[in-house]
This record gives sequence, structure tokens and C-alpha cells, in this order.
Amino acid sequence: MQVYLVGGAVRDQLLGRPIKDKDFVVVGATITEMLDAGFQQVGADFPVFLHPISREEYALARTERKQGMGYQGFSIHASSDVSLKDDLQRRDLTVNAMAIEVTSITDDTPISGDVIDYYGGLDDIKSKSLRHVSSAFSEDPLRVLRTTRFYSRYYDLGFTIADDTLALMRELVNSGELAHLSSERIWQESSRAMMQLSPQVYWQQLFDIGALTEHFTPLHQAWNDVQIREMVQTALYFSGQMQLNLSQRWALLMTSLRPSIFNIKPSDLVDSEAAISTKRIIDIGNMAKVPKSHTQFASLFVQQVEKLTIVSHITAAEKIDLIQACSAHKAPEKLSQLLVTSQVLQLAIQHCQMMLALNSFHAIGMQDIDQNLKGPAIGKALRQCRIEHLQTQTA
Amino acid sequence: MQVYLVGGAVRDQLLGRPIKDKDFVVVGATITEMLDAGFQQVGADFPVFLHPISREEYALARTERKQGMGYQGFSIHASSDVSLKDDLQRRDLTVNAMAIEVTSITDDTPISGDVIDYYGGLDDIKSKSLRHVSSAFSEDPLRVLRTTRFYSRYYDLGFTIADDTLALMRELVNSGELAHLSSERIWQESSRAMMQLSPQVYWQQLFDIGALTEHFTPLHQAWNDVQIREMVQTALYFSGQMQLNLSQRWALLMTSLRPSIFNIKPSDLVDSEAAISTKRIIDIGNMAKVPKSHTQFASLFVQQVEKLTIVSHITAAEKIDLIQACSAHKAPEKLSQLLVTSQVLQLAIQHCQMMLALNSFHAIGMQDIDQNLKGPAIGKALRQCRIEHLQTQTA
Repeated sequence: MQVYLVGGAVRDQLLGRPIKDKDFVVVGATITEMLDAGFQQVGADFPVFLHPISREEYALARTERKQGMGYQGFSIHASSDVSLKDDLQRRDLTVNAMAIEVTSITDDTPISGDVIDYYGGLDDIKSKSLRHVSSAFSEDPLRVLRTTRFYSRYYDLGFTIADDTLALMRELVNSGELAHLSSERIWQESSRAMMQLSPQVYWQQLFDIGALTEHFTPLHQAWNDVQIREMVQTALYFSGQMQLNLSQRWALLMTSLRPSIFNIKPSDLVDSEAAISTKRIIDIGNMAKVPKSHTQFASLFVQQVEKLTIVSHITAAEKIDLIQACSAHKAPEKLSQLLVTSQVLQLAIQHCQMMLALNSFHAIGMQDIDQNLKGPAIGKALRQCRIEHLQTQTA
Repeated sequence: MQVYLVGGAVRDQLLGRPIKDKDFVVVGATITEMLDAGFQQVGADFPVFLHPISREEYALARTERKQGMGYQGFSIHASSDVSLKDDLQRRDLTVNAMAIEVTSITDDTPISGDVIDYYGGLDDIKSKSLRHVSSAFSEDPLRVLRTTRFYSRYYDLGFTIADDTLALMRELVNSGELAHLSSERIWQESSRAMMQLSPQVYWQQLFDIGALTEHFTPLHQAWNDVQIREMVQTALYFSGQMQLNLSQRWALLMTSLRPSIFNIKPSDLVDSEAAISTKRIIDIGNMAKVPKSHTQFASLFVQQVEKLTIVSHITAAEKIDLIQACSAHKAPEKLSQLLVTSQVLQLAIQHCQMMLALNSFHAIGMQDIDQNLKGPAIGKALRQCRIEHLQTQTA
């Protein structure tokens, strides 16, 4: 019997990231041997076991073969003659398909520091590439979301999705396979991706390959407006930098469904639009099986966002009404979270606007002004030209 | 020769916090023995050595005795007959005065898991108390700042400063000893405290015991206004939650010196006030030897804060001028940092205002309205009463 530490723990150790869960693969053992050693089987037909003390996962080496559509259609072959190499081959990405041999099922001390790497994971760590292990990648449509989640997870390290892998992902999307994924699995991947440092990368990439059309249709539609897409992605970027919680991040994503938020003139806003947006948020929440608390927080945010934005300038009556609307008298921390979310949204809007102004600043140079000008007149003319450029951009 | 891991590493291990630097105490060794083992001495007259490979600090066990005023006036006694207990006794807080024996000066594997605890550090970890080791605490005025820094560091865990220790700190402040501290040491402690999760705790505690009067006089004066103090402390709280950088945190602290920022009516603001505030920020920067980059960022922020706050509503001309004023065409990330700082300040102001409104909400109950009211009239009367209460609070 050989035991290997595999997957995320090996990957994160190589990347110098904190290791959360340790998963192990056991080669050359039977179910009976595992049960005899005191391990607890997870599900009657599935060869995965929990360590009696550490509760870490130990799986018998196995191969999988696709049989039907979607995530469920697999036949699993686990026996003592399945090799580590076979087991690693069925995995999604090369960076997730490396192993380190450990002493035994009761002692996870590595036998040596050597990383077992059949599929080029070490090279891909070096070149910062998320690459599929084999064409079997396409057998599971969830891997479209999973690979994108890893992209958002390691985006700050400079990782990208390999061209070939991205092509497979696009094929999977185009084949309509994503429709067969359960909402639970989609939310599981999406909510985990949302809590990464770069949540915007997940949604942007899925949008780019058309993967939002099935389960997040209203979001896909809203993001056809490039300005809204950029504002919301910037807001998500800041939500990662500022460590906002999942409800707050979800609320920022859901502001996409109320486009008037991004309109500079508040006079355009009408109450009926808030009601329509709320319905859209509830619809998307039902479609993607989003936990109710997040949908409620997002709805409240999108309804109250104008008031929240200008809290310093609203009347005493509006403040008292805002407290009532947010149930802040029962849960003051929720009001606090709403205020933070509103400021992050404002920050994103301001950021996008100032980046536009910065573009105008850089777009205008000496070639754009009268060449005969001298001294302070040059600066004055540049300034005027830049202002005019920016005015045409935002008209 | 016995070698012990001491101080921060032992404390943070017990608290489950990440361990940064490891410091060791060596008992029963001479300077010659350390040099022979390849260690490098830090300063000719100071028995501290750097490990040839790990660069970790190994100090010979020593005692210290105060000789003059301030931080410099110490005579050091290091010899091979100074015990670990003697060495630990000269330390500031019991949580910093614990040790774990390790194998040798070349192998820092613990001999056993036992924590050596002569002064009740384990009990104080348990009861979350920052407590002085002995009355020798008062020999070093820097310990006022250091203890307060630890308070801000572990505030989120529920730690408090023990009453006796706080009394010693107050005595040190009242004795005028703080005047003898060098600006460099003060900035070192203060900047480290600023980067904790709860930076506001450091400044609030120092203000409370009068420790800001010497080196941060303008800040102490500004904070006599309780409203400004609360706004800035809230801003610092959010700066910790949102992981702002040191320049941003310093800028938020420095907004204390421009009180009109906290005034709700922007018409009250005058340009001359911005100039006065800038001078104050430069003065405090010189007094506390704040690195220039922080002073410059804070000055820029305090000058541009009104524009930054309403970026979504300013004209194209104002945007182009703002870019020029912030040198954003050369350093766009600085503009981004300024926008974030401004949003955090706004958030703090909004938060304080909504907390005031929440107080009014809770202050008014059934006893404050006509007892004969029935049905929806009750809610209406409560609302009206709360609005009036809030109006009197903010009048």
C-alpha cells in the first residue's frame, strides 16, 4: 500500500500559499483494509474515507469514465490495481495533478521532498499556466467553472488559462453541456470564486466565453453594456482588496441588474425600476440557488443604494426611515455592511470616471496644440484640449 | 549552554497568530563562544548576535539597570551567570516573557513542548491581559507606546491592558519621561501600531492617558473635540478592516487637523484653511520624524479631499485639474489610493451619523408617545418622535 498527498495541498505548497485541506490517494488497498484501519467511508458506493482522527480525506486510486450527460454520468473504477498515474490522469488541471508520497495512512510525513509530476504540473507552475491534464477534461462541464475559479484564485500571481484549455472550455459551453449542471454545484463554485482576491476575473472570464447565458441570463444581458460591466468588475475588484463578505460581493454583482445606479444624474431614477431590479435579483437567486440571505441583502442594497450613498446629506426623517427599511434597529451590523458596500460601489464609479479622465490626459500631447505657443500658454492650451477631449468622451 | 526561543514567537504561537521573527536567548555562553560558532555580533558593546544562516537574533542572557533619563540610560550586564529567569524579568509584558528551550544554537527544534513561564504569561494569555512583568516596567518610557501597540495588535482577540499596568503608564506620562524618547523610536512604534488591524485603539489609548501632548501636540488638541475624535477613530477602524497602506492611514489620522472636513456643509470650507492644515501636517511630520512620503500623501489628501469625495459630480475641467494636482499622470496608483482614502473617510462620517440616528431610534419608545394611539398611528407617532429627537441631536 502506497499513500500520496495529492491535489491542492501539493499545489499550494509549491505556490507558497497557505494549505487548507489535505487530500490523500491510497494505491494498492481495498475498502476492507481501510475500514479495518478505522477509516470511515464517505457514501456507500464511493471509495473515499475519512481519517479516524484528522478527518482528512483518503481516496482509493480510481479511474472514471463518462457515461451520460452532465456531472452525474460517471462510472467509477476503483481497485487495488489502479496506479497513482491513472488516478492523477483523471484530474482537471496539471497543477492539481501532482503528488508527494507519505509514510503511511496513519503518518503523513513525506518520504522525501520529491514531487511526483506525470503531467507537467511543475512546468505549468513555473510558467503560471492553468492547463488541462488530458482531453478527459471535457467529460465534466463543471470544470469550466472550476478552472475559471482557479484563474480568479491565482490571478494576482499572474496565472492565465492555457490557450488549448480555454478552447476546450469554449467547446463545452457551445455544446450546451453547462445546462446539465446542478444549481448547487454552480453556486458552490461561484461562491468560492466570489471570495477570492480577484472575484471579478471569474465573472469576466465566464462572460467572455458565453458561460453566463444558461444560469445567469440576466447578468449576461446586463453586461452587454460595457460601461456597466466595467463598473461592476471594478467594484468586485475592490471588494476583494477590501475583504468584503459574500453578501456584499453578491450585492455588488447584482447592481448590474439596476443599470440606473451607474447613471450620474439621480433624477433619472424611478421607484418602479427598483422593483423591477429586485424581481431580477430574486429570479437570478432562484435560478442559481443562491442562499436567501444573500438575495435579501442584495435586494435591500439595490433598493436603498441612493440613500446610502448620500447619507451625510439626507434629512433626519430619511435617516430614521432608512434604519427602519434596513431593520438596523435589530441588526446594526447590516447597516454598517450596506454603507461599506455603497462606498465600494461609489469608489468603483469614481475610479472608472477618473481612469477615463486620465485617458484624456494622456491622449492629448504637444502635437494637439498650436505649435507657436510659448511658456505658460502651453500648459493652458494642453489643459483646455484635455478638458474638451474628456467632455466628448463623457457626452 | 542552554538556548531558548523567547518573546514574540512564543506569544504568537500560543495565540495562534503567524510567527514573524524568532528571537533566542543563550544562557551560559560567552561572546567568544558565539563568535567562534560563526555568529555575527550586532554592535560592538551589545551581546546580540545574528545566526550565520537564518539571520535570527541570538542574545546572551542579560540584565539591565536604568541609569539616566529616557530610553538610552541603561547599563547592561551580560555574563554566563545570568539566568533565563533574570533575562525574562527585564522584559515589558508577561505575555512577552515566556520561553521554550530549543536543542542548540544551530538547531531550533524545541526540546519539549513545555513553555517556561516564570511571570504568569500563560494565565495572562488566558485572561487576555497585557500586564507588566515587574516594576522595572517604568524604567523605559517607550513601554507606554509598546504596550499600547500590543493593545491595538490584540484588541480583536479581546485583550485589555491590566489596571496596574495602565496606572504605571499614566505615571510615566505624568512624570514627563516621554519627552526623552527619540522621534525615531516613537515613529517606529507608532507606524507599526498603525498597521495593526485596530490602529484606532493605539491613538485612542494614548490620547486617553495624555501621551500625545509631547510629540503629537496638534493631534491632542484636535481630539479634544469628541466628534472629530470619533470620526477619525472610526476612519482608522475601517482603514484596518480594509487593509489600507500606511500613507492612507496616516492621511486619515491627519484629517483631524482639518476639522472642516467633518462639517456637513461644504460651503463653510475655505482655501486658507487647507493651507493651515497642510502646515500642521508638516509640523507634526517634522516633530514625529514621519517619512516625507507619508506627509506628502496626507497633505495632498487633506487639500483635495472635497474634490475626491464628489468625483462623480465634478466637471471635466475639475477632473483634469485633479489629475494634475495629484500627479496622477505620472503615478496613477496614487490617485487610486487617494480615492480609496476619501471613500473610507466618507464611510466613517456616514457610519458615525447613522449611529447617531440609531441612538435616536432606540431612545424613543412607547413611553414617549400618546398612550391612547392605536394601530398604524403608533408607528407614525414613533417615527415623528424619533425624527425630532435626531434633529435636536444634530442641531
